[in-house]
Amino acid sequence: MVYLDYAATTPMLPEVLDAMHKAERKYFANASALHTPGHLAFNEIEHTRELLAELIGAKPTEIIFTSGASESNNTVIRTFVGHKIETSKIEHHSIIELAKKVSGKKMPKLYSYMLANNEIGEILDLKKIVEKAKKEPIPKSSELFEPVSEWGKPLVTDRRGGYVHSDLTQVLGKIPIDVHKLNLDYATFSAHKIGGPIGVGALYIKDGVPFSPLIIGGNQENKRRGGTYNTVGIIGFGAALAKIKQEKSWENYDTRVRKLRDELARRILKEIPGSSLNTDLRPGKSLPNILNVSFEAAEGESIQLYLDAEGIIVSTGSACASGDIKPSHVLMAKTGDAEVAHSSIRFSFGLESTKEDIDKTMAVLPGIIDRLQKISTVKMRKK
Amino acid sequence: MVYLDYAATTPMLPEVLDAMHKAERKYFANASALHTPGHLAFNEIEHTRELLAELIGAKPTEIIFTSGASESNNTVIRTFVGHKIETSKIEHHSIIELAKKVSGKKMPKLYSYMLANNEIGEILDLKKIVEKAKKEPIPKSSELFEPVSEWGKPLVTDRRGGYVHSDLTQVLGKIPIDVHKLNLDYATFSAHKIGGPIGVGALYIKDGVPFSPLIIGGNQENKRRGGTYNTVGIIGFGAALAKIKQEKSWENYDTRVRKLRDELARRILKEIPGSSLNTDLRPGKSLPNILNVSFEAAEGESIQLYLDAEGIIVSTGSACASGDIKPSHVLMAKTGDAEVAHSSIRFSFGLESTKEDIDKTMAVLPGIIDRLQKISTVKMRKK
Repeated sequence: MVYLDYAATTPMLPEVLDAMHKAERKYFANASALHTPGHLAFNEIEHTRELLAELIGAKPTEIIFTSGASESNNTVIRTFVGHKIETSKIEHHSIIELAKKVSGKKMPKLYSYMLANNEIGEILDLKKIVEKAKKEPIPKSSELFEPVSEWGKPLVTDRRGGYVHSDLTQVLGKIPIDVHKLNLDYATFSAHKIGGPIGVGALYIKDGVPFSPLIIGGNQENKRRGGTYNTVGIIGFGAALAKIKQEKSWENYDTRVRKLRDELARRILKEIPGSSLNTDLRPGKSLPNILNVSFEAAEGESIQLYLDAEGIIVSTGSACASGDIKPSHVLMAKTGDAEVAHSSIRFSFGLESTKEDIDKTMAVLPGIIDRLQKISTVKMRKK
Repeated sequence: MVYLDYAATTPMLPEVLDAMHKAERKYFANASALHTPGHLAFNEIEHTRELLAELIGAKPTEIIFTSGASESNNTVIRTFVGHKIETSKIEHHSIIELAKKVSGKKMPKLYSYMLANNEIGEILDLKKIVEKAKKEPIPKSSELFEPVSEWGKPLVTDRRGGYVHSDLTQVLGKIPIDVHKLNLDYATFSAHKIGGPIGVGALYIKDGVPFSPLIIGGNQENKRRGGTYNTVGIIGFGAALAKIKQEKSWENYDTRVRKLRDELARRILKEIPGSSLNTDLRPGKSLPNILNVSFEAAEGESIQLYLDAEGIIVSTGSACASGDIKPSHVLMAKTGDAEVAHSSIRFSFGLESTKEDIDKTMAVLPGIIDRLQKISTVKMRKK
C-alpha cells in the first residue's frame, strides 16, 4: 500500500505504540483518584503537558487535553457565543459551521484563523490577523462579555477588543511553533496528525483570556474540561511529541518531505495533461507535506477510487467532509470554480513517505487520468 | 495490589487489549475517508455499534459514539438548554452541574435520572420517572422547543410533554438493559467501566426525539457528533461488549461479585466498631459491585491513604470530584450528615475480584480504623 493520506490521519509511530502498550497495564487507574496508582497516572499526563508546552512556547497551565481538534475548536468558538466571530473561508468545518450558528454582534471579537490549511496546505499570514485584532477598540464595559452564552454569567476577560484563535492541527511538528511569540490567545492541537492516537487533542488557552468549558463535569483540568483523563491516549500523544522534539521533525519536513512533495508535483505537471496545482509550492507559502492538484475533466472521487484499486491511498479534500456531494469549501473559496474543486486530489506525505511511493503513484496516475478524461463529457481546454 | 476501585475505572480486559493492538496497525486510516482502508475501519465501528444496540435493545442508528460519559451526559442536557430539567440529587457532576447552569422554564421537560448510582450503588425507580414524564402535559405549540439554545433554531420534537434520559454508565454489563422496554429517550454509556478503554463513550438517542449536537464539525455520526472516529478505541469498546454478551456478565455480577461484596460488608460490620453501610444490600436495591461504608470518627481520605500504603486501592466517593474538600453530594443527599459523608469509603468490585482481596483488606482495615478513631477529636457514639 502507498499511503498518501497523512493529513487525514497518521499511522501510530512505533514509539507511540510502545509507550501506550506499557501504559495500558501500568497506568490504568483513574488519574483523578487520590491513591498511588491514580497519582502515577496523573504524573504521566503532566509529563505530556510539559512537553507540549515546551514545544509550542506555552506554560503547562495554559494547556488542557480534549478528545481532539474538533472539540478544541468548538470549545473556543462556544466561549464566544453571541459575540462577533470572524474566520477565514478555509477553516475546518468544526470552526466554520459552528461560527455560522453562534456568531453574534457583541464585543469583544474573536478571530479564528488557522496557520496552515488541511486541504491545500496554504500558510496564512497570522501576524497580520493578530495585528488587526490588537487594533480592535476596547468595548465599553456595558458591551464587555455580557452573559450571552447559556452559562448565564459574564466571562472572565482581560479587557481587550479582539482575541485570536488558531487551529494548529496540521502545523504541529511541521513548522516550529511559538504561541506566545505569535501572540495567540487560543490554539488547537491533535495527536493523530503527528503519529499519536485518535481521540486525543489539546487546547492552548492563554492565561487570563475568556474561557467557558465545553464539557462540564468533574474537577479535571482545573474545571476547564470534565471527563476521566484519557491517560493512555495522552501518554501516546507524549511519545509522539517526544519524537518531534528529539528529531526536530520540522527540519525533516522542510527538506526530505518537501523534496518528495515537489518531485510528485513536478512529475504530475510534466506527465499529465490538464493538471494544475492548488498548492503554492514556494517555501513559506504552504506546508511541505501537502499537495493539492486538479485534473481537468476528471472527477476527484473517480481518481481516488481508481488509485485505491491500485493500493494508492489519497483523498479528495478532507475526510471530515466525506458524504457531502458539495465541492470542498476550501477549493471553492480559493478557486471559485466548482469544476476545479470537483476534480481535485490531495496527496499528503509523512516522515515515512519514500521516493518509491512517488514512483508507484506515477506508474498508474497518468493512465487513470487519461482514461477518465477520455470518457468525460467535459471538454478539455487544451491538450 | 488489591484493586477495589472498579467503579472509578476498570483495567482493560486482555480481549480488549488484543483487539486494540491488532486494530492499531490494521485499521489506522480515517474511517470517514472514501478509500478502502477508510471503509474497513468504518465497518469495525459499525460492528461495535450493532453489538451495543443489541445489548441495550436499541437500533444501531439510535447510537452515536462520544469521548465518554461526561460528553454523552452534557450532550443531552445541552439539548434542553432553557427548558425545565429535573434530575435526581445523586446524579454525576456532568449532569447536576450543567443542569444547574442551563435549566430554564420552557416546555417540554427533561428528566435525567440514573438507573444506578456510582458512589453508593443505589438503584432508582426509573419506571416511576418514566410514568411521571409521560403524564407531563403536551406544551402549546408556542412553547414547543422554541429556539432557546444558541443554535438559533427550533429542535425537532415528536411533541411530548416530557423526555427521560438515564446515565447507565455504571449499569452496563451489571444488570440487563433494554432502553426500549424502559421507555428511555436518551441513555449514556462508557467503555472504561466495562474493561474497555478510557476516552470512548456512547449515547443512545431514540428516533424522533429532540437532539442538538455538542460537537459540530464534519459529517461523522450522521452529523450528530463531529470529530475523527476513534476507530481503535471503539474496537476496544466492542471487544468489552462482546465479552459481556458472551458471558452474560450480569449473571456473574449477581452471583459471584455480589457474594464478595456482601461478605466484605458482613465482616466490616462484625469486626469494625462504628461502621455502618451507606449501600442497601438487598437484591434490586443496589448494584451488586458497590459497597459504601461510613466509619464513625474516622476520616475517609485518611482511611484511603492508610489502605493505599498497604497496597489496597479504594476511593472516597467519586474520582471525578477529587480535589473538592466538600463532602460527596451523593452522601449528603442520602444522609444529610457531613460527618457520615466525610467518613465514607467506596469499595467497588469487578469480575476479577477474589476472596483473597477481601481477606487482605480485612487483615488491615480494622487496625487502620481503630488507630484513626483513637486519635480522632470526634467522640464515638457507642463502642
